[in-house]
Amino acid sequence: MEQLEKQLGYTFKDKDKLLLAMTHSSYITEHDMTREMCNERLEFLGDSVIELAVRESLYEKFPHEEEGKLSQIKSALVRCESLAAVAREIGIGSCLRLGKGEDMAGGRDKDSILENAFEALMGAVFADGGFEAARPVVKKFLDHRIDEAVKEHRVDDHKGRLQEKAHKKHIKKLSYKTIKATGQSHDRTFTVEVYADGRALAQGTGKSKKEAEIMAAKKAINRI
Amino acid sequence: MEQLEKQLGYTFKDKDKLLLAMTHSSYITEHDMTREMCNERLEFLGDSVIELAVRESLYEKFPHEEEGKLSQIKSALVRCESLAAVAREIGIGSCLRLGKGEDMAGGRDKDSILENAFEALMGAVFADGGFEAARPVVKKFLDHRIDEAVKEHRVDDHKGRLQEKAHKKHIKKLSYKTIKATGQSHDRTFTVEVYADGRALAQGTGKSKKEAEIMAAKKAINRI
Repeated sequence: MEQLEKQLGYTFKDKDKLLLAMTHSSYITEHDMTREMCNERLEFLGDSVIELAVRESLYEKFPHEEEGKLSQIKSALVRCESLAAVAREIGIGSCLRLGKGEDMAGGRDKDSILENAFEALMGAVFADGGFEAARPVVKKFLDHRIDEAVKEHRVDDHKGRLQEKAHKKHIKKLSYKTIKATGQSHDRTFTVEVYADGRALAQGTGKSKKEAEIMAAKKAINRI
Repeated sequence: MEQLEKQLGYTFKDKDKLLLAMTHSSYITEHDMTREMCNERLEFLGDSVIELAVRESLYEKFPHEEEGKLSQIKSALVRCESLAAVAREIGIGSCLRLGKGEDMAGGRDKDSILENAFEALMGAVFADGGFEAARPVVKKFLDHRIDEAVKEHRVDDHKGRLQEKAHKKHIKKLSYKTIKATGQSHDRTFTVEVYADGRALAQGTGKSKKEAEIMAAKKAINRI
């Protein structure tokens, strides 16, 4: 448990909270304990502690990104496998109190159990020391993953990059307009033009309006 | 805007954040502004500020309630109509910057717009003053609603009340056992017995096991 605290960079005032976070429901079932003595209630708290800390990071890191994009990156960060990976990094598996059956079934390395335990752990830090204590712990483990998630979601995000560059260049408004659509209804080709404050920058074509917009943005990036 | 701050019980260091929270996307569309100048990004933050503050309240108010029940009450508190009602109470509608079209269409009293604006407002308080500043504001508007939500979800919650009373009486474990099932498969009647630390307390019958458990719990409450 001390090892775990070292990993977190946080020392609990109340060590019982740490122990509670590491207690899986399968353990209490076997030991005739009541349900409030497992980590589910802390997981309920920790879930939104992580959400808030991650959203705050994204809000600050991307001052010009739209809400939709922030949501997308956020979802990648807090999905089960991502949090389970963090739990493995910290070594939560070996600290868990599991029921014998769950333990023999490989519970210490199950994504869902690890994810929930990591959430419970963040809930425990929050319950013990408040959001100011929990924020740096969450950020320590998730901030460097933001860059990966960003990469994953922004490769080919030409519209987003154009928007950012436009902002830097003090362009007030980017707009896209479909200027041509050819072909039959089941096989159309669209041509879209992108404008910076009304000035035409570039055209792109594609099998959908969205695809055409992306192609137009890609060309436009070097023209502003 | 000053009136709004008074309602919140919070004074913004940066008034621009308050203005941003009150700016609906329909306004920026009409005024040729970029999307980051409407309240959607703050709403993204505020959503989880409210979640965390409400979960913390529930966690503290119900130290013996299971996670499932806490989630249920929480959902009732943060659903759209609830937050829109709070927004009306504060008078957010008249402070909104809306596009003309949206304004004429009655946007100042639309649940979705009001809910989002309340979330953005809580996001603005958080971005301005941190979670320690946002928590009391959220609690001010939502804590007294917890009791209503609880009532709504716990009327007839005999099992929950029995669990609570059992805890107070230092009973370690309540258990339910089906002791009889009669009738044909499409029309069965179950009899369930409830035990406190192995001691039989009461029996209940019903058309499902769950119903029989509830009836047993109802009778048992006055026997511990």
